[in-house]
Amino acid sequence: MASEGSPTKREKVLRALEELGRRLVEQIEAGQFPSIELPSRSTTNIRYDPELRQYVLGDKRVRRTAANIRHLRPLMHLVWAAYFSHELVRSWKTTTLRDVYYSAQAYGFAFKDQQESNNIVVDLESVIGFPREDFNIFPEERSSVFGDLTVEYTVPGYEGKRLNLTSHPDGMMIGPALANAKFVDVRADKVIAIEKGGLFTRFIEERVHERYNAILIHTAGQAPRATRYFIRRLHEELGLDVYILTDGDPWGMHIAMVIISGSAEAAHLRGLTTPDAKWIGVWATDIVKYKLPSDPLTDIDIKRLHELERDPRYSGELWQREIRAFLKHKRKSELEAFSRYGLTYIVDEYLPDKLGE
Amino acid sequence: MASEGSPTKREKVLRALEELGRRLVEQIEAGQFPSIELPSRSTTNIRYDPELRQYVLGDKRVRRTAANIRHLRPLMHLVWAAYFSHELVRSWKTTTLRDVYYSAQAYGFAFKDQQESNNIVVDLESVIGFPREDFNIFPEERSSVFGDLTVEYTVPGYEGKRLNLTSHPDGMMIGPALANAKFVDVRADKVIAIEKGGLFTRFIEERVHERYNAILIHTAGQAPRATRYFIRRLHEELGLDVYILTDGDPWGMHIAMVIISGSAEAAHLRGLTTPDAKWIGVWATDIVKYKLPSDPLTDIDIKRLHELERDPRYSGELWQREIRAFLKHKRKSELEAFSRYGLTYIVDEYLPDKLGE
Repeated sequence: MASEGSPTKREKVLRALEELGRRLVEQIEAGQFPSIELPSRSTTNIRYDPELRQYVLGDKRVRRTAANIRHLRPLMHLVWAAYFSHELVRSWKTTTLRDVYYSAQAYGFAFKDQQESNNIVVDLESVIGFPREDFNIFPEERSSVFGDLTVEYTVPGYEGKRLNLTSHPDGMMIGPALANAKFVDVRADKVIAIEKGGLFTRFIEERVHERYNAILIHTAGQAPRATRYFIRRLHEELGLDVYILTDGDPWGMHIAMVIISGSAEAAHLRGLTTPDAKWIGVWATDIVKYKLPSDPLTDIDIKRLHELERDPRYSGELWQREIRAFLKHKRKSELEAFSRYGLTYIVDEYLPDKLGE
Repeated sequence: MASEGSPTKREKVLRALEELGRRLVEQIEAGQFPSIELPSRSTTNIRYDPELRQYVLGDKRVRRTAANIRHLRPLMHLVWAAYFSHELVRSWKTTTLRDVYYSAQAYGFAFKDQQESNNIVVDLESVIGFPREDFNIFPEERSSVFGDLTVEYTVPGYEGKRLNLTSHPDGMMIGPALANAKFVDVRADKVIAIEKGGLFTRFIEERVHERYNAILIHTAGQAPRATRYFIRRLHEELGLDVYILTDGDPWGMHIAMVIISGSAEAAHLRGLTTPDAKWIGVWATDIVKYKLPSDPLTDIDIKRLHELERDPRYSGELWQREIRAFLKHKRKSELEAFSRYGLTYIVDEYLPDKLGE
């Protein structure tokens, strides 16, 4: 969140896109073939940074130049994507990757397929260093939020309008407007992010937001990047502790990990991770400790656990212990499994146990 | 929506569940084996009712009686489900089908699998004539809404609180609280339901709610039943016209049809359909008329179209014409395809064309 006077993120994005265009014009005016340099995203240039606790790109860079006929097409696409994104941000319009793919035709060319169009958007991210949500290309997926936080919108038609995020007891969507809203006032001292929608609703009904002074977030499976950015802002700007509750299986663990340390695909980006966030369950050891109903791990689950075991993001003691416990007991449990002790057990017993740890 | 003095839906559901229990007790006190009669949901008992414009069950009924040892297990499950649902409604708790499955273990028995537990919930729906959302068993899926409608909540902690559904520019979740809120004041004169989330957000940004005086609903694919009920209420209680926008393929058509005429699986229920709602596109004929970028239909798409062709819900002239057009041109187009004419074309040109038809 920008303080008075310093540029907003929107302004920074607009400037970065304009700067890209200015460099190209300068090259042309200097009689040079225009070119754009960007960090290489090849796997050999991706490494884990233990300080940042996320994947980052190394020093290898690639250049797209109009002097090379094979570069002309991706260079043109990249310049168009920058122009199109600038238009989006300037006019406060948001769009999707699918829309970008079709929009090319409004400009007299066509992408070969969705993959080609998606790649260009990632190229643009790595050139200007902002995730695509910051230049208004959002995914279809949406998470939702509920809790005692008052925000002030910055989108057109809503400038200066404030809303407390407990106003609607079914929860509010985390979309473009909320991602960029100012945080005005917060009573909560923590964030609890939950994988499942049914449980998010139950937590609201059981007044977890009041009893545990928490902002509740429904990730809806893997959290979209706008939601990961929102969670990071809650931690960085407001100092809230972040706790993550998922199903007790390798996929649930990884939902938590992507909030904590991001993904290799986003190695070219900063500002989407919350390394201090804590995965509080369902742990493999909880399945035993709480005698939860469980299902056997599938071969795919086990293969995935072995992958995670070697993944540098999972090198911490807790993660290694839980991966070993999964592989030992070969069982998994969903969050709903706590209902075997009654519907409120997870809120009355499990949650305080885990927050206390 | 109940007027002052008449029972609310919540009260009706509680009474229906209590009445079920009372009948069982009376049977036992009269020295009879307790039994429950329910309409048969076998396919031979499902027929299409052209008056109601939905599937309904015929007169065939089945009886579960404690006098038959093979009935004991499903009878016990059904009685438990009724008790559990009564507890949920009485205590204002909502839950999910997955939670119901696990909750049995809190009562000392276990369902064989999720399917057995799901079936019992449908049995209970058909006995009391209310969808499971009315006895507080909700799916994971959530749609969202945005528009000039002021609601008054009835859930605990929010009684009497009002909110205008334009308060949050990313949209509000349609969950248990909104499904049962009172409609206090509406400015909109129509509902536009949209399959895709990106487009829902674009419509808000393009002020479709103001320009076309509409409440916008994001169905998020197939609309959950709470959303179908919400749409019906907007039509029945407030007299709003309902328009549905989906991708131009058999799956999009069917998203619209399930809002309009429901599904065969819900033949035992009333009150979830909006027969007067209109599917306004993307039609097969629009793909040609608007020269949309399109993809070839797959074999599965074509098989599905032949199924729909014979489905009584699709007997109307528009539907048959569009099915024939799909089968003739063998192409499909997504809503995003309109972006080939620029991002606002769908709002500036296509939408007024279709609303005018």
